[in-house]
Amino acid sequence: MSDLAGSFENSNSKPLSADAHAAAELDRSSRAVRRTRRASSLGQILANSLIASQRGSTALLRLSRPSKRNALDNAMIAGIENFMSDPPEGTRAIIIYGEGKHFSAGVDLAALSESRAQGGSITFSRAFHRAFDRIENSEIPVIAVLQGAVIGAGLELAAAAHIRVAERSTYYALPEAALGIFPGAGGAVRIPRLIGAPRMTDMMLTGRTYTAEEGMPLGLSQYVVDDGQGIAKALELAEKVAANATLSNFAVLQALPRIARMDPDGGFLLESLMAALTTGDDEAKARLDAFFRTRAANAAHSPNGDDL
Amino acid sequence: MSDLAGSFENSNSKPLSADAHAAAELDRSSRAVRRTRRASSLGQILANSLIASQRGSTALLRLSRPSKRNALDNAMIAGIENFMSDPPEGTRAIIIYGEGKHFSAGVDLAALSESRAQGGSITFSRAFHRAFDRIENSEIPVIAVLQGAVIGAGLELAAAAHIRVAERSTYYALPEAALGIFPGAGGAVRIPRLIGAPRMTDMMLTGRTYTAEEGMPLGLSQYVVDDGQGIAKALELAEKVAANATLSNFAVLQALPRIARMDPDGGFLLESLMAALTTGDDEAKARLDAFFRTRAANAAHSPNGDDL
Repeated sequence: MSDLAGSFENSNSKPLSADAHAAAELDRSSRAVRRTRRASSLGQILANSLIASQRGSTALLRLSRPSKRNALDNAMIAGIENFMSDPPEGTRAIIIYGEGKHFSAGVDLAALSESRAQGGSITFSRAFHRAFDRIENSEIPVIAVLQGAVIGAGLELAAAAHIRVAERSTYYALPEAALGIFPGAGGAVRIPRLIGAPRMTDMMLTGRTYTAEEGMPLGLSQYVVDDGQGIAKALELAEKVAANATLSNFAVLQALPRIARMDPDGGFLLESLMAALTTGDDEAKARLDAFFRTRAANAAHSPNGDDL
Repeated sequence: MSDLAGSFENSNSKPLSADAHAAAELDRSSRAVRRTRRASSLGQILANSLIASQRGSTALLRLSRPSKRNALDNAMIAGIENFMSDPPEGTRAIIIYGEGKHFSAGVDLAALSESRAQGGSITFSRAFHRAFDRIENSEIPVIAVLQGAVIGAGLELAAAAHIRVAERSTYYALPEAALGIFPGAGGAVRIPRLIGAPRMTDMMLTGRTYTAEEGMPLGLSQYVVDDGQGIAKALELAEKVAANATLSNFAVLQALPRIARMDPDGGFLLESLMAALTTGDDEAKARLDAFFRTRAANAAHSPNGDDL
């Protein structure tokens, strides 16, 4: 993982930000005991294996179970759902990343076997659905930083994020069929939307893997960066995201995917409603006014300055 | 076509496998007379222009009309439907390939004209639909090996397969509009799912063709291999496919494409049901148990061996 992320991995080390408050919060998180309910303070611990921190208006959520390649168990899934249901006040972007060399090697198979023994496979799957649905349907943009293994439910988690930044070490795999199982964390719905059903079919039937660079043109990520650069890139993107009008971001996350799935006739109307609502918003008025003031100021200095 | 495939093209020549039994079966096929009903024995002849053979648990179906670039006529379409309706017992993967330099140059235009003269164009089209639907909805994975011309109904046939392996000589074309006709073998439904409607629109309006290497990133195939390597690659993939749990392969072929087309809400539920059913299956239990035994054995040798 990146040097920047490395600073998160040991919360006694120097944190990402030189900000003394944030440093104190990260230290506090390292001393906190496991809590089942999410705390809304910074540096919160959601489970032993899930740690949240804050940098400005960006919240970072770290999968923190590196000895298991961040395999996802019940506590982590409940923690993700809790965090996404009530992110810290004022958060404008969320970054999800993995501690260590891997994003996530998938579902914790011991937890899966246990759910099976207890006849609760469907409940287990539905808990993943609730948690990842909170990500996909979040009104706050979610950026996933990927590295190393992005396998099974790890890929299903990544697919629920709005933006994926893959470090070069990333590789994608769906080995479920070899184990006799099937994706149960929303991957069968979301992954074909990224890469098409035929490519997912091939990955599942033959065990084929894709690298970060192969995956980007297929749709598995929107960005590929060098190893160690993922968090920095995600923070840079989060800053751009945070600079947009809130209602425009809402429209992108809530309206765009639904319009894409709708009958076009209804989709066009929904688009018009969304466009009219954003245009009528005070924030749009203020931003448009600022644009015209800047143009007028430029026009005073240049004869061609009134180009739009 | 490949050297390996070459061995199939003349069934008196040395067959693909050195296996004496398979060789005998291939010889038998060469002596068989035309039968209207499919025989379930190996080396069956489904039509003069369609020949099936078997290698282990993989069934191979050869389009065998090389003088017509494997143009598809009524007998071949009926043969494909018959074969796919009742594949040989124990078949775990099916490979469809073309004899000679081309996969298929499309519908046999003489047969199309004849159907037109008899007012049976719609019947002709629906027969293609039934046959290719048997491929797409097969519970046994179907791999198409492409080379040379993959034109019109040839591309429509390829699009119905689950995995496409294209040799470098492959080129894709949809020249229907220049002939005043329109795809009638499911291509208007399936090809936009592979490459998007705008790319298919361009191919049809302008006669644009794509090569094997151009086609892969667009979704026309999942693999590109050197000329002559298609059958070997398909057999290698078939072996991986055959090693999966039967119920997982069923889920990939039956559930995945339907989930991809469903309303997401229903799709998530169907995914959970499919995941729970596979997880509860004895084969999954055996495979997960084997996974944990291997992990435990590795852990005895390595302190980090219990990673997922």
